[in-house]
Amino acid sequence: MADKQTLYKKQAGEYAASLIEDNMVVGLGTGSTVRFFIEALAQRINIEGLDIIGVTTSSKTSSLAKALGIKLSSVDEVPYIDLTIDGADEVDSAFNGIKGGGAALLFEKIVALNAHKNVWIIDESKYHDVIGQFPLPVEVVPYGSHQLFKRFDEADLQPLFRRTETGERLTTDAGNYIIDLTLERINHPKSLAYFLEQTVGVVEHGLFLNIVDEVIIGGEQLKIITKHPDKLFDN
Amino acid sequence: MADKQTLYKKQAGEYAASLIEDNMVVGLGTGSTVRFFIEALAQRINIEGLDIIGVTTSSKTSSLAKALGIKLSSVDEVPYIDLTIDGADEVDSAFNGIKGGGAALLFEKIVALNAHKNVWIIDESKYHDVIGQFPLPVEVVPYGSHQLFKRFDEADLQPLFRRTETGERLTTDAGNYIIDLTLERINHPKSLAYFLEQTVGVVEHGLFLNIVDEVIIGGEQLKIITKHPDKLFDN
Repeated sequence: MADKQTLYKKQAGEYAASLIEDNMVVGLGTGSTVRFFIEALAQRINIEGLDIIGVTTSSKTSSLAKALGIKLSSVDEVPYIDLTIDGADEVDSAFNGIKGGGAALLFEKIVALNAHKNVWIIDESKYHDVIGQFPLPVEVVPYGSHQLFKRFDEADLQPLFRRTETGERLTTDAGNYIIDLTLERINHPKSLAYFLEQTVGVVEHGLFLNIVDEVIIGGEQLKIITKHPDKLFDN
Repeated sequence: MADKQTLYKKQAGEYAASLIEDNMVVGLGTGSTVRFFIEALAQRINIEGLDIIGVTTSSKTSSLAKALGIKLSSVDEVPYIDLTIDGADEVDSAFNGIKGGGAALLFEKIVALNAHKNVWIIDESKYHDVIGQFPLPVEVVPYGSHQLFKRFDEADLQPLFRRTETGERLTTDAGNYIIDLTLERINHPKSLAYFLEQTVGVVEHGLFLNIVDEVIIGGEQLKIITKHPDKLFDN
């Protein structure tokens, strides 16, 4: 039997699939919660004959979506994305998020910023008052990354190169490295984002601020939180 | 016989070679002016037996330096760089520069920021009151670059994908595209840099602000301009 967290992920993912309407261009995120969404979406496409174009955020998601028969397009080939459904590693009550646990943050952010609406699906363990418990992924250019690592270390940002199971440095779909910063609490996400964006060699960071419109939280009760407090309700 | 501009480039490049001291780790820029510097440096290494380690900024410069017998190291393998000699496409009197005409801006900026001192060598045609006559190169992630192009276009930044001689989109050493922005005059380089750094999909831009310490300008008279006005002198 699946554990509770897996059930909550499935609950959020399947609910998200119900948001998709015929003829939508849909951004497809990456990760274990998104997998449930994509499976449920493929089922709706099959049964209801929906005409959907998916825009993926990683080679992993591309493989999964293709295998399930979802039509795909590049973010550059569509005029825009109607709705992107993605996971998140951590979300706070101010709609700040950390993403990149699956190393897909760069393409996830590109797809998110080309979408009219962004919905995140998470299980309740990922919803916190303040983000930072999850290490913050930073995608960096390999050339000079050792020097960058030293600079992060001197700034007390507790850097760690992300590694594969076999111990090599993980390479992203765009050919970069990931440095994870262990920060515990990110009290000022905007200034940290600004610092990272200014840092030469940083391609992108996992702080997603001012991006998500709605968060679907799987748990004992499914919760849907939107940016407008009057739309906050339990389902 | 070489034209005047080529002579001025050679003059600046050869002067820069005289700045190198024994046991230095030297950042080696990219471009036609730097080529003269590297050739003159190789000659000094041969004749004087200098012990120099070069850190290059492009595959082109690596090939040239190797062919001339200069020992090379990666920016990640040295503790720091003593002095980087690089060219620039345009420099203004406030020491703001545009670089990236040779498509090497990302690695050039990484090497520059790991150097204790940065010297640029240019011919006098590149020194202007305000930068912007030279199109500003922006290095972008290929995925989503068409959307980014549209956004630059809507912001009236006159974007143009850099292409190879055979008409394909040029790919940088890091696997990215270059979008050149035709701006004529960049009156507020800091705010433009901030805008570009915040833009998702931008890996790096060709604005080099607050980086160069000294500019060597080839011309009828060789000029050396340092950040401290009391060191301004004609040679």
